[in-house]
Amino acid sequence: MTLEQRLSELGLSLPEAATPGARYAAVVVHAGAAWVSGQLPRDGDRVLHAGKLGRDVSLAQAQAGARVALLRALAALRDELGGLERVQQVLRMTVFVNSTEDFAGHSAVADGASTLIYELLGPERGRHARTSVGVAQLPRNGCVELDLVVALG
Amino acid sequence: MTLEQRLSELGLSLPEAATPGARYAAVVVHAGAAWVSGQLPRDGDRVLHAGKLGRDVSLAQAQAGARVALLRALAALRDELGGLERVQQVLRMTVFVNSTEDFAGHSAVADGASTLIYELLGPERGRHARTSVGVAQLPRNGCVELDLVVALG
Amino acid sequence: MTLEQRLSELGLSLPEAATPGARYAAVVVHAGAAWVSGQLPRDGDRVLHAGKLGRDVSLAQAQAGARVALLRALAALRDELGGLERVQQVLRMTVFVNSTEDFAGHSAVADGASTLIYELLGPERGRHARTSVGVAQLPRNGCVELDLVVALG
Repeated sequence: MTLEQRLSELGLSLPEAATPGARYAAVVVHAGAAWVSGQLPRDGDRVLHAGKLGRDVSLAQAQAGARVALLRALAALRDELGGLERVQQVLRMTVFVNSTEDFAGHSAVADGASTLIYELLGPERGRHARTSVGVAQLPRNGCVELDLVVALG
Repeated sequence: MTLEQRLSELGLSLPEAATPGARYAAVVVHAGAAWVSGQLPRDGDRVLHAGKLGRDVSLAQAQAGARVALLRALAALRDELGGLERVQQVLRMTVFVNSTEDFAGHSAVADGASTLIYELLGPERGRHARTSVGVAQLPRNGCVELDLVVALG
Repeated sequence: MTLEQRLSELGLSLPEAATPGARYAAVVVHAGAAWVSGQLPRDGDRVLHAGKLGRDVSLAQAQAGARVALLRALAALRDELGGLERVQQVLRMTVFVNSTEDFAGHSAVADGASTLIYELLGPERGRHARTSVGVAQLPRNGCVELDLVVALG
Protein backbone atom coordinates (compact mmCIF):
# COMPACT_ATOMS: atom_id res chain seq x y z
CA MET A 1 0.00 0.00 0.00
CA THR A 2 1.36 3.40 -0.88
CA LEU A 3 1.64 6.18 1.64
CA GLU A 4 -1.05 8.09 -0.20
CA GLN A 5 -3.39 5.10 -0.07
CA ARG A 6 -2.68 4.72 3.62
CA LEU A 7 -3.48 8.39 4.23
CA SER A 8 -6.75 7.90 2.41
CA GLU A 9 -7.51 4.77 4.43
CA LEU A 10 -7.01 6.76 7.63
CA GLY A 11 -9.43 9.38 6.31
CA LEU A 12 -6.68 11.97 6.00
CA SER A 13 -5.85 14.26 3.14
CA LEU A 14 -2.78 16.40 2.74
CA PRO A 15 -3.18 20.15 3.07
CA GLU A 16 -1.80 22.63 0.63
CA ALA A 17 1.89 22.90 1.37
CA ALA A 18 2.94 26.26 2.71
CA THR A 19 4.96 28.26 0.24
CA PRO A 20 7.89 29.53 2.23
CA GLY A 21 8.99 33.08 1.74
CA ALA A 22 11.40 33.58 -1.12
CA ARG A 23 14.38 33.06 1.15
CA TYR A 24 14.35 29.34 1.79
CA ALA A 25 12.82 26.09 0.56
CA ALA A 26 10.32 23.79 2.25
CA VAL A 27 12.34 20.71 1.24
CA VAL A 28 15.88 20.14 -0.03
CA VAL A 29 16.88 16.75 -1.44
CA HIS A 30 20.46 15.52 -1.46
CA ALA A 31 22.12 12.09 -1.55
CA GLY A 32 19.02 10.05 -0.84
CA ALA A 33 17.72 12.21 1.99
CA ALA A 34 15.19 15.03 2.21
CA TRP A 35 15.63 17.87 4.67
CA VAL A 36 12.25 19.35 5.57
CA SER A 37 11.99 22.87 6.98
CA GLY A 38 10.31 23.53 10.32
CA GLN A 39 6.54 23.15 10.02
CA LEU A 40 3.86 24.81 12.13
CA PRO A 41 0.29 23.61 12.57
CA ARG A 42 -1.43 25.81 10.04
CA ASP A 43 -4.68 25.83 8.15
CA GLY A 44 -3.84 27.93 5.12
CA ASP A 45 -2.45 31.12 6.59
CA ARG A 46 -4.00 30.63 10.02
CA VAL A 47 -1.93 29.13 12.86
CA LEU A 48 -3.94 26.55 14.82
CA HIS A 49 -3.90 26.48 18.63
CA ALA A 50 -1.45 29.36 19.03
CA GLY A 51 0.15 29.86 22.43
CA LYS A 52 1.99 28.04 25.18
CA LEU A 53 1.60 24.58 26.61
CA GLY A 54 1.07 24.90 30.35
CA ARG A 55 -1.02 28.05 29.95
CA ASP A 56 -2.88 28.63 26.67
CA VAL A 57 -3.03 25.31 24.87
CA SER A 58 -4.10 21.87 26.10
CA LEU A 59 -2.10 18.70 25.53
CA ALA A 60 -4.79 17.36 23.20
CA GLN A 61 -4.71 20.57 21.14
CA ALA A 62 -0.94 20.45 20.87
CA GLN A 63 -0.99 16.78 19.87
CA ALA A 64 -3.48 17.63 17.13
CA GLY A 65 -1.20 20.52 16.16
CA ALA A 66 1.81 18.22 15.90
CA ARG A 67 -0.23 15.93 13.67
CA VAL A 68 -1.16 18.81 11.39
CA ALA A 69 2.46 19.98 11.24
CA LEU A 70 3.49 16.48 10.17
CA LEU A 71 0.82 16.45 7.44
CA ARG A 72 2.21 19.77 6.21
CA ALA A 73 5.68 18.22 6.11
CA LEU A 74 4.30 15.37 3.99
CA ALA A 75 2.56 17.86 1.72
CA ALA A 76 5.85 19.70 1.26
CA LEU A 77 7.57 16.41 0.42
CA ARG A 78 4.84 15.52 -2.08
CA ASP A 79 5.22 18.89 -3.80
CA GLU A 80 9.01 18.62 -3.98
CA LEU A 81 9.16 14.96 -5.04
CA GLY A 82 6.05 14.85 -7.22
CA GLY A 83 4.56 12.19 -4.93
CA LEU A 84 5.30 10.25 -1.76
CA GLU A 85 6.47 6.97 -3.33
CA ARG A 86 10.12 7.65 -2.47
CA VAL A 87 9.52 8.31 1.24
CA GLN A 88 11.16 5.40 3.08
CA GLN A 89 11.64 6.38 6.71
CA VAL A 90 11.89 9.40 8.98
CA LEU A 91 15.46 9.46 10.29
CA ARG A 92 14.96 12.25 12.81
CA MET A 93 12.03 14.38 13.87
CA THR A 94 12.85 17.34 16.09
CA VAL A 95 9.86 18.73 17.97
CA PHE A 96 9.98 22.20 19.50
CA VAL A 97 7.17 22.83 21.98
CA ASN A 98 6.23 26.38 23.01
CA SER A 99 5.99 25.85 26.74
CA THR A 100 5.96 27.50 30.11
CA GLU A 101 8.60 26.60 32.66
CA ASP A 102 6.06 24.41 34.41
CA PHE A 103 5.18 22.17 31.48
CA ALA A 104 7.20 18.99 31.18
CA GLY A 105 5.08 16.83 28.85
CA HIS A 106 6.96 17.57 25.62
CA SER A 107 7.22 13.89 24.79
CA ALA A 108 3.45 13.52 24.94
CA VAL A 109 3.05 16.42 22.50
CA ALA A 110 5.54 14.82 20.12
CA ASP A 111 3.61 11.54 20.34
CA GLY A 112 0.86 13.26 18.35
CA ALA A 113 3.15 13.24 15.31
CA SER A 114 5.02 10.00 16.13
CA THR A 115 1.78 8.05 16.30
CA LEU A 116 0.81 9.25 12.84
CA ILE A 117 4.21 8.26 11.45
CA TYR A 118 3.61 4.75 12.77
CA GLU A 119 0.05 4.64 11.44
CA LEU A 120 1.33 5.65 8.01
CA LEU A 121 4.57 3.71 7.70
CA GLY A 122 4.07 0.71 9.99
CA PRO A 123 6.24 -0.78 12.72
CA GLU A 124 9.45 -1.14 10.68
CA ARG A 125 9.54 1.85 8.36
CA GLY A 126 7.81 3.93 11.03
CA ARG A 127 10.82 3.75 13.38
CA HIS A 128 12.31 7.24 13.77
CA ALA A 129 14.72 9.00 16.10
CA ARG A 130 13.15 11.91 17.92
CA THR A 131 14.15 14.89 20.01
CA SER A 132 11.62 17.06 21.82
CA VAL A 133 12.36 20.21 23.80
CA GLY A 134 10.48 23.18 25.25
CA VAL A 135 11.25 26.58 23.76
CA ALA A 136 10.53 30.15 24.81
CA GLN A 137 8.57 31.04 21.71
CA LEU A 138 7.91 29.94 18.13
CA PRO A 139 7.25 31.80 14.90
CA ARG A 140 3.77 33.32 14.89
CA ASN A 141 3.22 32.06 18.44
CA GLY A 142 2.70 28.50 17.24
CA CYS A 143 2.33 25.88 19.98
CA VAL A 144 4.58 23.35 18.26
CA GLU A 145 7.03 23.23 15.35
CA LEU A 146 8.71 20.16 13.90
CA ASP A 147 11.27 19.38 11.25
CA LEU A 148 12.33 16.12 9.61
CA VAL A 149 15.21 14.35 7.92
CA VAL A 150 13.73 11.68 5.66
CA ALA A 151 15.38 8.74 3.91
CA LEU A 152 14.29 8.41 0.25
CA GLY A 153 14.19 5.31 -1.91
CA MET B 1 41.62 -0.32 21.60
CA THR B 2 37.87 -0.68 21.21
CA LEU B 3 35.44 1.86 22.52
CA GLU B 4 34.22 -0.67 25.05
CA GLN B 5 37.77 -1.29 26.28
CA ARG B 6 38.31 2.45 26.52
CA LEU B 7 35.13 2.84 28.58
CA SER B 8 36.37 0.15 30.89
CA GLU B 9 39.79 1.79 31.15
CA LEU B 10 38.09 5.03 32.20
CA GLY B 11 36.19 3.12 34.86
CA LEU B 12 32.88 3.67 33.10
CA SER B 13 30.14 1.23 32.28
CA LEU B 14 27.16 1.81 30.07
CA PRO B 15 23.76 2.06 31.71
CA GLU B 16 20.71 0.21 30.56
CA ALA B 17 19.46 2.01 27.49
CA ALA B 18 16.12 3.67 27.95
CA THR B 19 13.34 1.95 26.06
CA PRO B 20 11.48 4.75 24.37
CA GLY B 21 7.72 4.65 24.33
CA ALA B 22 6.24 2.66 21.49
CA ARG B 23 6.11 5.69 19.25
CA TYR B 24 9.73 6.23 18.32
CA ALA B 25 13.12 4.53 18.35
CA ALA B 26 16.22 5.36 20.35
CA VAL B 27 18.45 4.93 17.28
CA VAL B 28 17.80 4.76 13.54
CA VAL B 29 20.56 3.65 11.17
CA HIS B 30 20.68 4.67 7.51
CA ALA B 31 23.41 4.99 4.90
CA GLY B 32 26.36 4.72 7.28
CA ALA B 33 25.02 7.08 9.93
CA ALA B 34 23.10 6.59 13.18
CA TRP B 35 20.54 9.13 14.33
CA VAL B 36 20.25 9.01 18.13
CA SER B 37 17.13 10.35 19.87
CA GLY B 38 17.38 13.05 22.52
CA GLN B 39 18.82 11.64 25.75
CA LEU B 40 18.26 12.87 29.28
CA PRO B 41 20.52 12.23 32.28
CA ARG B 42 18.65 9.35 33.82
CA ASP B 43 19.37 6.58 36.25
CA GLY B 44 16.78 3.99 35.31
CA ASP B 45 13.51 5.86 35.45
CA ARG B 46 14.83 8.67 37.67
CA VAL B 47 15.96 11.95 36.11
CA LEU B 48 19.21 13.19 37.65
CA HIS B 49 19.70 16.83 38.63
CA ALA B 50 16.28 18.01 37.43
CA GLY B 51 15.72 21.73 37.07
CA LYS B 52 17.19 24.86 35.59
CA LEU B 53 20.76 26.05 35.25
CA GLY B 54 21.03 29.46 36.84
CA ARG B 55 18.63 28.53 39.63
CA ASP B 56 18.25 24.86 40.61
CA VAL B 57 21.24 23.03 39.20
CA SER B 58 24.96 23.81 39.42
CA LEU B 59 27.31 23.81 36.46
CA ALA B 60 29.11 20.74 37.83
CA GLN B 61 25.82 18.86 38.21
CA ALA B 62 24.79 19.71 34.66
CA GLN B 63 28.18 18.68 33.28
CA ALA B 64 27.80 15.35 35.06
CA GLY B 65 24.29 15.15 33.63
CA ALA B 66 25.55 15.75 30.09
CA ARG B 67 28.07 12.97 30.61
CA VAL B 68 25.35 10.57 31.75
CA ALA B 69 23.16 11.53 28.77
CA LEU B 70 26.07 10.74 26.46
CA LEU B 71 26.57 7.35 28.11
CA ARG B 72 22.89 6.65 27.55
CA ALA B 73 23.31 7.55 23.88
CA LEU B 74 26.19 5.07 23.66
CA ALA B 75 24.09 2.42 25.40
CA ALA B 76 21.32 2.98 22.86
CA LEU B 77 23.84 2.64 20.02
CA ARG B 78 25.20 -0.57 21.54
CA ASP B 79 21.71 -2.03 21.78
CA GLU B 80 20.83 -1.08 18.20
CA LEU B 81 24.13 -2.12 16.62
CA GLY B 82 24.93 -5.12 18.81
CA GLY B 83 28.15 -3.44 19.96
CA LEU B 84 30.11 -0.23 19.55
CA GLU B 85 32.70 -1.43 17.02
CA ARG B 86 31.08 0.47 14.15
CA VAL B 87 31.04 3.86 15.94
CA GLN B 88 33.52 6.04 14.06
CA GLN B 89 32.84 9.65 14.91
CA VAL B 90 30.16 11.96 16.26
CA LEU B 91 29.21 14.29 13.40
CA ARG B 92 26.98 16.57 15.43
CA MET B 93 25.96 16.77 19.05
CA THR B 94 23.14 19.19 19.85
CA VAL B 95 22.92 20.13 23.52
CA PHE B 96 19.76 21.70 24.93
CA VAL B 97 20.26 23.24 28.37
CA ASN B 98 17.28 24.01 30.61
CA SER B 99 18.27 27.49 31.69
CA THR B 100 17.09 30.75 33.15
CA GLU B 101 17.46 33.94 31.18
CA ASP B 102 20.48 34.81 33.28
CA PHE B 103 22.53 31.70 32.58
CA ALA B 104 24.92 31.97 29.65
CA GLY B 105 27.32 29.06 30.26
CA HIS B 106 25.71 26.55 27.90
CA SER B 107 29.03 25.76 26.27
CA ALA B 108 30.51 24.77 29.62
CA VAL B 109 27.60 22.38 30.23
CA ALA B 110 28.12 20.82 26.81
CA ASP B 111 31.83 20.40 27.59
CA GLY B 112 30.79 17.70 30.06
CA ALA B 113 29.81 15.49 27.15
CA SER B 114 32.40 16.75 24.65
CA THR B 115 35.23 15.94 27.03
CA LEU B 116 34.00 12.37 27.34
CA ILE B 117 33.78 12.02 23.54
CA TYR B 118 37.44 13.03 23.36
CA GLU B 119 38.44 10.72 26.17
CA LEU B 120 36.73 7.83 24.40
CA LEU B 121 37.60 8.45 20.76
CA GLY B 122 40.83 10.44 20.91
CA PRO B 123 41.90 13.68 19.22
CA GLU B 124 41.08 12.68 15.63
CA ARG B 125 37.96 10.54 15.84
CA GLY B 126 36.79 12.62 18.80
CA ARG B 127 36.32 15.74 16.67
CA HIS B 128 32.63 16.63 16.53
CA ALA B 129 30.51 19.60 15.53
CA ARG B 130 28.40 20.94 18.36
CA THR B 131 25.51 23.28 18.98
CA SER B 132 24.41 24.30 22.47
CA VAL B 133 21.43 26.47 23.33
CA GLY B 134 19.32 27.36 26.37
CA VAL B 135 15.72 26.24 26.32
CA ALA B 136 12.65 27.10 28.39
CA GLN B 137 12.03 23.56 29.60
CA LEU B 138 12.88 19.93 28.86
CA PRO B 139 10.94 16.68 29.16
CA ARG B 140 10.52 15.68 32.80
CA ASN B 141 12.27 18.89 33.88
CA GLY B 142 15.68 17.51 32.88
CA CYS B 143 18.57 19.95 33.16
CA VAL B 144 20.12 18.95 29.84
CA GLU B 145 19.19 16.89 26.78
CA LEU B 146 21.45 15.95 23.89
CA ASP B 147 21.12 14.15 20.60
CA LEU B 148 23.73 12.83 18.16
CA VAL B 149 24.37 12.04 14.53
CA VAL B 150 27.09 9.39 14.41
CA ALA B 151 29.20 8.14 11.49
CA LEU B 152 29.43 4.34 11.37
CA GLY B 153 32.17 2.19 9.86
CA MET C 1 32.00 32.64 -10.33
CA THR C 2 33.41 31.16 -7.14
CA LEU C 3 31.89 31.75 -3.77
CA GLU C 4 34.92 33.75 -2.76
CA GLN C 5 34.59 35.96 -5.84
CA ARG C 6 30.91 36.44 -5.09
CA LEU C 7 31.72 37.46 -1.51
CA SER C 8 34.17 39.98 -2.85
CA GLU C 9 31.64 41.29 -5.38
CA LEU C 10 29.17 41.86 -2.51
CA GLY C 11 31.87 43.79 -0.66
CA LEU C 12 32.11 41.12 2.03
CA SER C 13 35.13 39.47 3.53
CA LEU C 14 35.21 36.49 5.82
CA PRO C 15 36.15 37.06 9.44
CA GLU C 16 38.68 35.01 11.30
CA ALA C 17 37.00 31.75 12.16
CA ALA C 18 36.47 31.24 15.85
CA THR C 19 38.71 28.58 17.31
CA PRO C 20 36.42 26.45 19.40
CA GLY C 21 37.60 25.31 22.77
CA ALA C 22 39.62 22.15 22.73
CA ARG C 23 36.53 20.01 23.18
CA TYR C 24 34.87 20.19 19.79
CA ALA C 25 35.47 21.18 16.19
CA ALA C 26 33.99 24.04 14.19
CA VAL C 27 33.41 21.75 11.19
CA VAL C 28 33.34 17.99 10.70
CA VAL C 29 33.32 16.52 7.17
CA HIS C 30 31.91 13.08 6.38
CA ALA C 31 30.49 11.41 3.28
CA GLY C 32 30.15 14.55 1.19
CA ALA C 33 28.61 16.72 3.88
CA ALA C 34 29.99 19.25 6.35
CA TRP C 35 28.47 19.65 9.80
CA VAL C 36 29.09 23.19 11.08
CA SER C 37 28.93 23.94 14.81
CA GLY C 38 26.59 26.60 16.16
CA GLN C 39 27.86 30.09 15.31
CA LEU C 40 27.25 33.31 17.18
CA PRO C 41 27.53 36.83 15.74
CA ARG C 42 31.00 37.71 16.97
CA ASP C 43 33.66 40.20 16.10
CA GLY C 44 36.78 38.47 17.37
CA ASP C 45 36.00 37.69 20.96
CA ARG C 46 33.20 40.24 21.27
CA VAL C 47 29.56 39.14 20.85
CA LEU C 48 27.61 41.59 18.70
CA HIS C 49 24.11 42.75 19.69
CA ALA C 50 23.88 40.63 22.82
CA GLY C 51 20.46 40.18 24.40
CA LYS C 52 16.88 39.25 23.64
CA LEU C 53 14.67 40.01 20.69
CA GLY C 54 11.53 41.69 21.96
CA ARG C 55 13.44 43.62 24.63
CA ASP C 56 17.13 44.37 24.08
CA VAL C 57 17.84 43.88 20.40
CA SER C 58 16.02 45.19 17.32
CA LEU C 59 15.00 43.07 14.37
CA ALA C 60 17.52 44.85 12.16
CA GLN C 61 20.32 44.20 14.65
CA ALA C 62 19.43 40.53 14.89
CA GLN C 63 19.25 40.19 11.10
CA ALA C 64 22.72 41.71 10.88
CA GLY C 65 23.79 39.30 13.61
CA ALA C 66 22.45 36.31 11.68
CA ARG C 67 24.40 37.50 8.66
CA VAL C 68 27.60 37.73 10.69
CA ALA C 69 27.02 34.26 12.16
CA LEU C 70 26.66 32.90 8.63
CA LEU C 71 29.91 34.56 7.56
CA ARG C 72 31.59 32.91 10.53
CA ALA C 73 30.20 29.55 9.42
CA LEU C 74 31.70 30.14 5.97
CA ALA C 75 35.02 31.13 7.52
CA ALA C 76 35.02 27.90 9.51
CA LEU C 77 34.28 25.93 6.33
CA ARG C 78 37.09 27.72 4.51
CA ASP C 79 39.54 26.88 7.28
CA GLU C 80 38.50 23.23 7.39
CA LEU C 81 38.34 22.68 3.62
CA GLY C 82 41.21 24.95 2.56
CA GLY C 83 38.78 27.03 0.50
CA LEU C 84 35.11 27.27 -0.40
CA GLU C 85 35.20 25.61 -3.82
CA ARG C 86 33.55 22.43 -2.55
CA VAL C 87 30.56 24.19 -0.96
CA GLN C 88 27.53 23.18 -3.05
CA GLN C 89 24.40 23.86 -1.06
CA VAL C 90 23.16 24.40 2.47
CA LEU C 91 20.91 21.43 3.29
CA ARG C 92 19.61 22.75 6.60
CA MET C 93 20.14 25.90 8.59
CA THR C 94 18.76 25.88 12.13
CA VAL C 95 18.35 29.34 13.64
CA PHE C 96 17.95 29.78 17.39
CA VAL C 97 16.71 33.25 18.37
CA ASN C 98 17.11 34.52 21.93
CA SER C 99 13.63 35.91 22.43
CA THR C 100 11.05 37.03 24.93
CA GLU C 101 7.70 35.29 25.06
CA ASP C 102 6.22 38.24 23.16
CA PHE C 103 8.48 38.11 20.13
CA ALA C 104 7.21 36.02 17.24
CA GLY C 105 9.32 37.27 14.31
CA HIS C 106 11.91 34.48 14.32
CA SER C 107 11.50 33.89 10.60
CA ALA C 108 12.37 37.50 9.88
CA VAL C 109 15.56 37.18 11.93
CA ALA C 110 16.52 34.04 10.02
CA ASP C 111 15.92 35.87 6.74
CA GLY C 112 19.06 37.87 7.52
CA ALA C 113 21.12 34.75 6.91
CA SER C 114 18.88 33.16 4.28
CA THR C 115 19.09 36.26 2.09
CA LEU C 116 22.87 36.12 2.17
CA ILE C 117 22.84 32.43 1.23
CA TYR C 118 20.79 33.35 -1.82
CA GLU C 119 23.00 36.30 -2.71
CA LEU C 120 26.04 34.05 -2.54
CA LEU C 121 24.78 30.83 -4.13
CA GLY C 122 21.96 31.98 -6.40
CA PRO C 123 18.38 30.75 -6.83
CA GLU C 124 19.17 27.07 -7.38
CA ARG C 125 22.15 26.30 -5.17
CA GLY C 126 20.86 28.82 -2.62
CA ARG C 127 17.79 26.70 -1.81
CA HIS C 128 18.02 25.48 1.77
CA ALA C 129 15.71 23.95 4.37
CA ARG C 130 15.38 26.06 7.49
CA THR C 131 14.08 25.83 11.02
CA SER C 132 13.82 28.86 13.31
CA VAL C 133 12.75 28.84 16.94
CA GLY C 134 12.86 31.14 19.96
CA VAL C 135 15.00 30.01 22.88
CA ALA C 136 15.31 31.10 26.50
CA GLN C 137 18.98 31.99 26.29
CA LEU C 138 22.10 31.47 24.17
CA PRO C 139 25.79 31.11 24.98
CA ARG C 140 27.25 34.43 26.06
CA ASN C 141 23.81 36.05 25.77
CA GLY C 142 24.03 36.09 21.97
CA CYS C 143 20.87 37.26 20.18
CA VAL C 144 21.01 34.53 17.55
CA GLU C 145 22.89 31.29 16.90
CA LEU C 146 22.80 29.18 13.76
CA ASP C 147 24.22 25.90 12.57
CA LEU C 148 24.45 24.31 9.12
CA VAL C 149 24.59 21.02 7.28
CA VAL C 150 26.30 21.67 3.95
CA ALA C 151 26.53 19.48 0.83
CA LEU C 152 30.05 19.37 -0.60
CA GLY C 153 31.13 18.70 -4.20
